[in-house]
Amino acid sequence: MAGEIIGAFQEERERLNEIVMRYAGLSTKRFYSLDAQVYREGALPARTKELLGLVASFVLRCDDCIKYHLVRCQEEGVTSEELEEALGVGLVVGGSITIPHLRRAFEAWTDLQVPGGVQEGT
Amino acid sequence: MAGEIIGAFQEERERLNEIVMRYAGLSTKRFYSLDAQVYREGALPARTKELLGLVASFVLRCDDCIKYHLVRCQEEGVTSEELEEALGVGLVVGGSITIPHLRRAFEAWTDLQVPGGVQEGT
Amino acid sequence: MAGEIIGAFQEERERLNEIVMRYAGLSTKRFYSLDAQVYREGALPARTKELLGLVASFVLRCDDCIKYHLVRCQEEGVTSEELEEALGVGLVVGGSITIPHLRRAFEAWTDLQVPGGVQEGT
Amino acid sequence: MAGEIIGAFQEERERLNEIVMRYAGLSTKRFYSLDAQVYREGALPARTKELLGLVASFVLRCDDCIKYHLVRCQEEGVTSEELEEALGVGLVVGGSITIPHLRRAFEAWTDLQVPGGVQEGT
Amino acid sequence: MAGEIIGAFQEERERLNEIVMRYAGLSTKRFYSLDAQVYREGALPARTKELLGLVASFVLRCDDCIKYHLVRCQEEGVTSEELEEALGVGLVVGGSITIPHLRRAFEAWTDLQVPGGVQEGT
Amino acid sequence: MAGEIIGAFQEERERLNEIVMRYAGLSTKRFYSLDAQVYREGALPARTKELLGLVASFVLRCDDCIKYHLVRCQEEGVTSEELEEALGVGLVVGGSITIPHLRRAFEAWTDLQVPGGVQEGT
Repeated sequence: MAGEIIGAFQEERERLNEIVMRYAGLSTKRFYSLDAQVYREGALPARTKELLGLVASFVLRCDDCIKYHLVRCQEEGVTSEELEEALGVGLVVGGSITIPHLRRAFEAWTDLQVPGGVQEGT
Repeated sequence: MAGEIIGAFQEERERLNEIVMRYAGLSTKRFYSLDAQVYREGALPARTKELLGLVASFVLRCDDCIKYHLVRCQEEGVTSEELEEALGVGLVVGGSITIPHLRRAFEAWTDLQVPGGVQEGT
Repeated sequence: MAGEIIGAFQEERERLNEIVMRYAGLSTKRFYSLDAQVYREGALPARTKELLGLVASFVLRCDDCIKYHLVRCQEEGVTSEELEEALGVGLVVGGSITIPHLRRAFEAWTDLQVPGGVQEGT
Repeated sequence: MAGEIIGAFQEERERLNEIVMRYAGLSTKRFYSLDAQVYREGALPARTKELLGLVASFVLRCDDCIKYHLVRCQEEGVTSEELEEALGVGLVVGGSITIPHLRRAFEAWTDLQVPGGVQEGT
Repeated sequence: MAGEIIGAFQEERERLNEIVMRYAGLSTKRFYSLDAQVYREGALPARTKELLGLVASFVLRCDDCIKYHLVRCQEEGVTSEELEEALGVGLVVGGSITIPHLRRAFEAWTDLQVPGGVQEGT
Repeated sequence: MAGEIIGAFQEERERLNEIVMRYAGLSTKRFYSLDAQVYREGALPARTKELLGLVASFVLRCDDCIKYHLVRCQEEGVTSEELEEALGVGLVVGGSITIPHLRRAFEAWTDLQVPGGVQEGT
């Protein structure tokens, strides 16, 4: 059952984003475009920015956002040790209320390690 | 499978509210009554108040509260364009962390458009 | 001491936005522009959008954002009764934790009623 | 300058609540009354309820609400050790983001120990 | 289907905590240990501390954390009336946005009353 | 008026931490120690961890925590462009509700650039 958690997440995300785009006005479309733009390589590497997005999502406790950034972190070559330290910062800043998200984050990360589990383009 | 998302939401909501009422003391009952009262027609139309409740629920990121207000918005004749603009305000105020809720909101809204999909009295 | 609270807020806001703009890259500038765009007249009147922005800011408990939208609400001709009902929705959605912000919101609103208290362009 | 922090807080709170009451409609008044009611002695002692209100305010990070409950905790005879343990739960649940509030909470608590520092009726 | 909700929660919690521990560094392990420590009997009884943890989790709106503390509250002999009053404080502090969590909390509490529904060691 | 904002922040922080330590039990002390530990050089550089702490504090909207991490970021040699990009991620994730904190963050950052403005040991 390789990459099942992330696979299901990506499928739903894609399907629902299509629904959003049926309704989206100019502002919403601009927001989506801005949301892609801020993670692009710049003075800070894309890799660092994905870690920032991950920890921000983690302390704000959004499982879907966490999964999205976990996929991107893996694509950027973040190691399990780096991930653990980044989430460790999030855990201390955000407190025990983030623990259920920590659990699901490591579950999804494990899921991501399954060979062939994630396709290109999230 | 018309109105399936909202249908399931309403059924669970009703079932669980019955459980709450088995335990509820006077304060909890008063809170429930106050929660109905603030959305009633007044200096502001009920329609505007439902949009306020929707956007407040959206930036606080509660899917169940969002679904509840989507049903009420539809009953008050809110159009898809108005809804999109209201959620657009929420998206800019609340940031990309609200995007998963935006997706599910538009999915539920689509579900609500299915003819016969929602019954009276939510 | 007419309009002192709002006056001080607007002065600081302007001064600090200038500092932001000294550092701001393209993404931050686009965000600022999007933040203006979503409140423009559309399917929903600007007045309703300002009330949405106000209540969103209120439940997220940001005094500066509340003050900003109070100024805009006054410019859009929102009455004290309408304001009270909008904040009433926010109070019930957001709970007693919003009460200190409710206090400061009404203090600022009173400050706004002082003749000549607010200048153009916030 | 005994009890200065709490004194200033109580004075402002009273002054601003009077402003709120000038605008308040029925719902807001009912909310205020409900807000008093839930802390009354019941199956749980008032003392425990004040600790619950304190920790809830602490993890939601509202300094004014924290101060209010600190005053009430002192009136209910909560000791410094009990307070420290209650805030310790809040610190672990809410994380390091609560630390600035922890600092101000203990500063206010110290202020409350000044003899004659707090008057009746907050 | 006695204790089904809590049973499923505990099983998943245990399974995922094992995954966390495969990755966890020293800081994360220390956080987990601290998270156990703050609820231990002290100047405040363990029972009161569990109620504090419950209400903190409730206003921060984390269903998993709420379920965990409900189990512990039952073990500490908290009655349904005491629970209802504690959640009533949470409801007023946190507002109607907590209502979906109130529903699921009472559903889980009902589930906990099923004889033989919960095993030792949560 | 070199480094006035940060100077005042550091002085108050130190003064209040002393008050905390007068009351602190073992758990609180352990939390403080853990809070230092997670930012230490490891698989991720201390510099990246400070940026993570900064953005986490930013989206959770705590001015004091932001100031603390700004000081540490400067000590770690973070440039203004890197800072702007990190806060840009925070702005998009957290939305316009973070803008007042963005303003104060850049004001404090400017304050930090004043020669001699910050002393050792924050």
